[in-house]
Amino acid sequence: MIRRLAVLGVGLIGGSVALALKRAGHVEQVVGYGRNRSNLEQALALGVLDEIADTPEQAVAGADCILLAMPVGGMTEVMHRIAPHLAADAIVTDAGSTKQDVIAAARLALGPKISRFVPGHPIAGAEKSGAAAALADLYDGRNVILTPLPENRPETVAAVASLWQACGAQILDMSAAEHDRVFAAVSHLPHLAAFALVDELAGRPEAELYFRHAGSGFRDFTRIAGSSPEMWRDIALANREALVGELDAYIARLSQLRDALSGGDGARLFDSFVRASQARREWAPAGTNHLENEDAQTAP
Amino acid sequence: MIRRLAVLGVGLIGGSVALALKRAGHVEQVVGYGRNRSNLEQALALGVLDEIADTPEQAVAGADCILLAMPVGGMTEVMHRIAPHLAADAIVTDAGSTKQDVIAAARLALGPKISRFVPGHPIAGAEKSGAAAALADLYDGRNVILTPLPENRPETVAAVASLWQACGAQILDMSAAEHDRVFAAVSHLPHLAAFALVDELAGRPEAELYFRHAGSGFRDFTRIAGSSPEMWRDIALANREALVGELDAYIARLSQLRDALSGGDGARLFDSFVRASQARREWAPAGTNHLENEDAQTAP
Repeated sequence: MIRRLAVLGVGLIGGSVALALKRAGHVEQVVGYGRNRSNLEQALALGVLDEIADTPEQAVAGADCILLAMPVGGMTEVMHRIAPHLAADAIVTDAGSTKQDVIAAARLALGPKISRFVPGHPIAGAEKSGAAAALADLYDGRNVILTPLPENRPETVAAVASLWQACGAQILDMSAAEHDRVFAAVSHLPHLAAFALVDELAGRPEAELYFRHAGSGFRDFTRIAGSSPEMWRDIALANREALVGELDAYIARLSQLRDALSGGDGARLFDSFVRASQARREWAPAGTNHLENEDAQTAP
Repeated sequence: MIRRLAVLGVGLIGGSVALALKRAGHVEQVVGYGRNRSNLEQALALGVLDEIADTPEQAVAGADCILLAMPVGGMTEVMHRIAPHLAADAIVTDAGSTKQDVIAAARLALGPKISRFVPGHPIAGAEKSGAAAALADLYDGRNVILTPLPENRPETVAAVASLWQACGAQILDMSAAEHDRVFAAVSHLPHLAAFALVDELAGRPEAELYFRHAGSGFRDFTRIAGSSPEMWRDIALANREALVGELDAYIARLSQLRDALSGGDGARLFDSFVRASQARREWAPAGTNHLENEDAQTAP
């Protein structure tokens, strides 16, 4: 049970945590801070928040639980500002799409209080953004990945896990390095690959001709190219090492297909397509209808 | 008005033409040929066909209109077999996903009768395949691209256009070279890029770990990787030149992103993402809910 939850970044992700915890009776009071005042006022009017804080420092004063739900690029500054104001028994978690960089920033900002911080990544989201889009059931049946630190005490990790479980989510534990490696491949790379295709066509003199004839294959392949450029720049830079490795592997794989095609090697193309189509047909997403928060989350 | 339509390849595409023309009262009789006998018998039972032919030669004997609706890879043989048996006034069209290779094969197979052949590509389809999936309204509001030949007489082109219009489609004229160039970029390349990503992950020792965490971005980006390997091998080989060019351009674009990321150049990433997301948000597919036939069409 949380007495006073501070949500820093009251968008779809943070707002939905507030609503979900209220639904579960897992929180008494929610205070929120964000850069967009009218968004905060909307959150207050909708009952997502009980109180608006004017600064991050004010938000965390007296809070026993803090959720960092702003884009990854904005976390460092906020962590430095809140560090001196954290209550001794406060627990801190985040909803960032990358973990190693958030942890590195947290170590610098929080110092010995790092033991209070349990990093997380909820794999949920929706097409809309902002506090008005928040949903009490956004996390029902979804995965939340926690990447606990060696400094965390078991009861701190358990408290953060129970926060997310109260939201309806199931907890998966991974190391931060494994998290970043896996999401570089299954989320960050596809986003860059979709951006790259649309940018390539958009820059052509005959762009209109290409787009006019693009159909449903193009539509689905490039849906994530409509995502927030700011957020994806931040995620790409934050997960630079793993993502460069994935780009290298993908470019090498495409070059193999290119050479097979150029050489008229239908058997090699066929073998690759068979492996891919079989794996794709056998695959089922972790949760039906779930959308990754990277697709939708915006700066609060 | 068509007296006797021969459909060679009675799958979703060919079967839907038969149903649509019957719905419009644009055809008296439909005879079908295909490699799969039970599929043909189902088509007969469902009223897609009025008659089953045992051979392509038998199908086209006495037909005043012939639709080639099998995968591109199977067209050459069929065209050679039917050429001697075409009625003098018969018109021929096809539904192949590539056009220059089909035209080259048709020139060899049909000789002087090439004037009777008006190449086409209906931009429609559905998730299901086979004659049982055929729909009378599959082409309603969809585009059909015709790439007429210099040898075609205007009334032959008009007859093929009116066939597709009777199916509910609208006609777009392009050159075969332009068609193949445009679809290499907006359809064939995305398919290869989706196959490549899934094959890359499926081949890793930890494939299961990656697939377990893949979410909705991955789901949509790779949907077309579930397509038929045979069909996509044929399409890739048939459109080899244009598709190699597109792969080169895409690999170069990805390499630029990779180098920008590796160098920590957030501004270059951001500029590319902004161009892509703006173009993607402004884009609307040619027809709502339409699916390209490449995604679904299978060997009849």
